[in-house]
Amino acid sequence: MSDPPRSPDGRRGELDLIRRIRERAGSADLAAGIAISIGDDAAALVPPPGEQLLVTTDVLVEGRHFILAGNSVRAGNSALAGNPHDDGSPQTCASGFDVGWKTLAVSISDIAAMGGRAAWAVLGVALPDGREDAFADALLDGVLACAAEFGVRLVGGDLSGSPGAVFTHATVFGSARSEHVVARTGARPGDALCVTGSLGGSGARRHLRPIPRQVEALTLVQGGVPHAMIDLSDGLSTDLLHLLDASGVGARIDADRIPRHPDAAAAARADGTSALRHALDDGEDFELLFAVSPERATALEADGLAGTPVTRIGSVTTERGAWLVDSDDHASALERGGHEHFRGA
Amino acid sequence: MSDPPRSPDGRRGELDLIRRIRERAGSADLAAGIAISIGDDAAALVPPPGEQLLVTTDVLVEGRHFILAGNSVRAGNSALAGNPHDDGSPQTCASGFDVGWKTLAVSISDIAAMGGRAAWAVLGVALPDGREDAFADALLDGVLACAAEFGVRLVGGDLSGSPGAVFTHATVFGSARSEHVVARTGARPGDALCVTGSLGGSGARRHLRPIPRQVEALTLVQGGVPHAMIDLSDGLSTDLLHLLDASGVGARIDADRIPRHPDAAAAARADGTSALRHALDDGEDFELLFAVSPERATALEADGLAGTPVTRIGSVTTERGAWLVDSDDHASALERGGHEHFRGA
Repeated sequence: MSDPPRSPDGRRGELDLIRRIRERAGSADLAAGIAISIGDDAAALVPPPGEQLLVTTDVLVEGRHFILAGNSVRAGNSALAGNPHDDGSPQTCASGFDVGWKTLAVSISDIAAMGGRAAWAVLGVALPDGREDAFADALLDGVLACAAEFGVRLVGGDLSGSPGAVFTHATVFGSARSEHVVARTGARPGDALCVTGSLGGSGARRHLRPIPRQVEALTLVQGGVPHAMIDLSDGLSTDLLHLLDASGVGARIDADRIPRHPDAAAAARADGTSALRHALDDGEDFELLFAVSPERATALEADGLAGTPVTRIGSVTTERGAWLVDSDDHASALERGGHEHFRGA
Repeated sequence: MSDPPRSPDGRRGELDLIRRIRERAGSADLAAGIAISIGDDAAALVPPPGEQLLVTTDVLVEGRHFILAGNSVRAGNSALAGNPHDDGSPQTCASGFDVGWKTLAVSISDIAAMGGRAAWAVLGVALPDGREDAFADALLDGVLACAAEFGVRLVGGDLSGSPGAVFTHATVFGSARSEHVVARTGARPGDALCVTGSLGGSGARRHLRPIPRQVEALTLVQGGVPHAMIDLSDGLSTDLLHLLDASGVGARIDADRIPRHPDAAAAARADGTSALRHALDDGEDFELLFAVSPERATALEADGLAGTPVTRIGSVTTERGAWLVDSDDHASALERGGHEHFRGA
């Protein structure tokens, strides 16, 4: 499709950027399944025979998923506005590198949560005038660094001007043997519910450089396919309910066992709530939540996954709904505290 | 990934929209190669065995690729600003349906230009407050109408708020037998250069409802794979040079043979240039330009492709560069007059 011309300077910057992307993204490479890469109407790829293709897309919008230093697009009425750290300081503002990294990482996390290995990505970027040069290069650095880290090849994209905010999207696709694909729908009563890593407070800084749990997910699947899995993008309370609803089951969650990230405690100190609340409701942890047999959970708690701790936080029940059980054995209904999006709802 | 909450009304509109998308896009359907559709972390698809996977993505930005009635985001310094019809009248403003249709159609056109059949799409949409309801439904209508028309299934997406402009993207996946995949790189000296349909003036209105030449491309490939092909998204002059550069050849184009759309003449009357200039340089015709043997070109001119006329406009030469030859046999160098984008440059 067309990309209408902009101011002469913006236009030149855009053409230079296209050239730099092509040079850095690499060309056809049959060993990586790439018959035709950037530079034609579409990429032509060779998926692994007999595997299912896993596809996901995410959109990032300035002022909603990140804020940029020195820019007029502020958090407004987004979740970031509720972040006590959203003070516009350099520490909490995203760099171009952060935006690029995050654009790709959030979708790689989705592929991982399906039990797949991310392989390829296409990228879309809309940049306002003045962001074509240093910012765009940093963004590309972030995309390519994340791609290299997780074995993903950039095979296409589209670039546009923007009347204001920076918008990015990545569509990431990978594959898995069909018997290794993990949906949200298979959790069974009696299953243990486990999470990787620790939760909460990612809005302070961590959300800008998410680390998709791809190695952990692949290790998990190799050792036996979990009954259901989801990545924690919208917050544990929300994503747990997604998984339970999809599986037609409920759960009891042991509040004391929810692993709280140090950032959750910091966020609680800053806003006067609790670290538990942050661990439950903050989005963008990008940890894995999955359902396995109790025996498997015990082994995973002992061994971890590829060096990442695993914590059993509760059990799947026949009765629908999710209950948060405290140390006095009081149960309260767990409600969605996080965010919604198109795929997950 | 997370989609931070917005104003309560916007938020409710967003959740309703997610539900409506899921209901209308359909669910898993193995006959359509869809093992898991919208509603999990990623879609799981079953590509046709032995075929290459074709992937392309496009970004549409309000004020750059379309303007909306009653909105403050105007064409600014985009190509639309040079459109004599860009008077903000209802006739030239995009409807939500137009935006949805165009978002998908421009990528289907790219798959067609590779000789492939588009099969699946994921969609990204960022909408400012107030556009979640009627506008969003109309956009979804447009996406699904285009998808149905061209046999594409919507299998995922992401929805976000936007601080101002409407942004959309689609990533479209299709496939083709590897021997049917047509790159830009195979044009040979002596080949005839042909276009489908007629060119120019699409900015007045036609660019909002592009008709990808998928049936024509598949018909062409079935009758013998062209040596090179590209879709005319950026304008004939620009896209011709893309194809020639990729193939390492040049061309002589017969100015009188370039098929001019009636809209090109109307645009010329309005801005005092020529219909030829509009046919050469206006983007978004979404016709096909391809290189075949002279004998094949003669047959295609006689028969057309699936009811669409084919016109031989020139010949491929060993000497690099493109020359436009007029009726007095004067040749002038043809230069890029259209637009650039990430994949095509």
